[in-house]
Amino acid sequence: MSEFRHNLITNEWVVVATERAKRPSDFVGSKTPKTIPEYSESCPFCPGNEQHTPPALYRYPAEGDWNIRVVPNKFAALKPTDSLERVQEGRYLKFGGFGYADVIIEAPLHNQTLGTLSEDNVLHVMKAYKARYDSLSADERVDLVTIFRNHGVRAGTSLEHPHSQIIATPLVPLRVRAQLEETQRYSANLGSCVFCDIMKEEKKDGRRLVLETDYFVAFEPYASRSPFETWILPKRHQSVFGAIHLNELKDMAHSVRTILGKMHRGLNNPDYNLILQSAPTKEEDVDYYHWYIRIIPRLTTPAGFEMGTGIYITTAYPEETADFLRKVKN
Amino acid sequence: MSEFRHNLITNEWVVVATERAKRPSDFVGSKTPKTIPEYSESCPFCPGNEQHTPPALYRYPAEGDWNIRVVPNKFAALKPTDSLERVQEGRYLKFGGFGYADVIIEAPLHNQTLGTLSEDNVLHVMKAYKARYDSLSADERVDLVTIFRNHGVRAGTSLEHPHSQIIATPLVPLRVRAQLEETQRYSANLGSCVFCDIMKEEKKDGRRLVLETDYFVAFEPYASRSPFETWILPKRHQSVFGAIHLNELKDMAHSVRTILGKMHRGLNNPDYNLILQSAPTKEEDVDYYHWYIRIIPRLTTPAGFEMGTGIYITTAYPEETADFLRKVKN
Repeated sequence: MSEFRHNLITNEWVVVATERAKRPSDFVGSKTPKTIPEYSESCPFCPGNEQHTPPALYRYPAEGDWNIRVVPNKFAALKPTDSLERVQEGRYLKFGGFGYADVIIEAPLHNQTLGTLSEDNVLHVMKAYKARYDSLSADERVDLVTIFRNHGVRAGTSLEHPHSQIIATPLVPLRVRAQLEETQRYSANLGSCVFCDIMKEEKKDGRRLVLETDYFVAFEPYASRSPFETWILPKRHQSVFGAIHLNELKDMAHSVRTILGKMHRGLNNPDYNLILQSAPTKEEDVDYYHWYIRIIPRLTTPAGFEMGTGIYITTAYPEETADFLRKVKN
Repeated sequence: MSEFRHNLITNEWVVVATERAKRPSDFVGSKTPKTIPEYSESCPFCPGNEQHTPPALYRYPAEGDWNIRVVPNKFAALKPTDSLERVQEGRYLKFGGFGYADVIIEAPLHNQTLGTLSEDNVLHVMKAYKARYDSLSADERVDLVTIFRNHGVRAGTSLEHPHSQIIATPLVPLRVRAQLEETQRYSANLGSCVFCDIMKEEKKDGRRLVLETDYFVAFEPYASRSPFETWILPKRHQSVFGAIHLNELKDMAHSVRTILGKMHRGLNNPDYNLILQSAPTKEEDVDYYHWYIRIIPRLTTPAGFEMGTGIYITTAYPEETADFLRKVKN
């Protein structure tokens, strides 16, 4: 029997479809891994090709050979020079493509990913996230800073070199606003943060838990939209990513690297999206929202039903995918 | 300069990104079309293999060789036997996978699609949609009937044989409810149906218009989420698909076939999703909602930013893709 499961954060339902249910091991990629070179002459992100990207906004270390470089996206969808003034076009509204689009080049080596880099290297990526989050959120015109990572063609990227992206937008989109409303309603009714409550539940239940560290918890959500969806949450309540402390950042690097490493080894380097969902920059201290990381391996394809209704049909139980990931060696 | 454009139906913004803008012709598929046979012995939908699907719920003609068959999905995500009773599991809610999942086999020929079948054949598919819509919406437990079509692997199907699907759900999902709220607010403020107003705008402006018939209008929406997204709307105000008249159904078949045919020929048989968005079955006569068809060619891949914010970045102007489609011969 299939079942509908309710997502407390979004107030959306998913269907876990047992008629076509698969074992977690059915999702292990069968493709022979392509041998990717450490260096690619034509890659704009490889060392020596710095002239193919705009000048760095941030780098680590500050001097000498770089390990991390943050540059404006050369093909930025948004730029800080466009106008915010709304213009009526017939019955419709538009305004200039104002915003920021950064690229975080995560390592000099062309053939690494966040799951295979050293923990120290991943920590420096997280520090770059934090530095750019702080810098972008300081612009009064920015309402939301979204950090994300697209890995592989199915996840929407064709650039192999390890990189993340940050886009800062001058509005809070409906999807984020809807989550804020749901979580605020929960908090008004139950007097607590829904994310904090979910962490309590997952730790108590244990079946969907993948990792617990001093400061972070990682688990497969009860109402997973797709197989192996994984959330990583900071234990301490904080609504925006900018509120993270340095000791938490180290733990975050460990958690992200561990989860992505488990996926890399256990599922044979799947394509995935990683999204850091944070409250809007001007709602940086609210008691009902809690920033978190969503990792969504692109193992299935959302189709017409998902697009039309927002109800995702998944073919794997999060209890089983969590068990699978727990057993993959760190 | 990129621009944000506002979607009046969903209250969401999209970004038309000019830095990476492409010409409509850049989206023409380059793959050599696979030669697909008229008949495939292993296809459960081909004539002679009827024993591999459950018995037909509807067929046309009623006797003799069938041209259209509607069967329950053998691997249905939802079944009308499951329980609707909500069950608390820890802090979460779940209930049985109640619902209906039909498959509409659109023709006996294995290698056709809705864009290449005869207009008469497409009309019989639309009649099957209508018959099943009426039948499923008559069940008091059903709140929403979603008709959709997934064409090609990138659109989430691996079955080549031409088919559509219908899923009836015992709830109105948040995404649909949100559209109803937005359109109701528009109606309360402006005293008219937003879809009717959009049709007026598109006919007046003309740049995004692709097709107009006696009863339907097809155009590329102002805030297209992705290149070549196309909407087909009935001119007469009707909130649910079940309200369509027979003469309109003929025109609908013509419009759907023309648009899909233009895409098939102009873009070299792209993968796409078609979704018929209708009001909930119990809101069958509201003045603020208007059913419509969305066709979304899967030419680009939504990535982390889209998943995290709901803001879609598109790389083509709907004014240009409409012009391209208008020029493809019918």
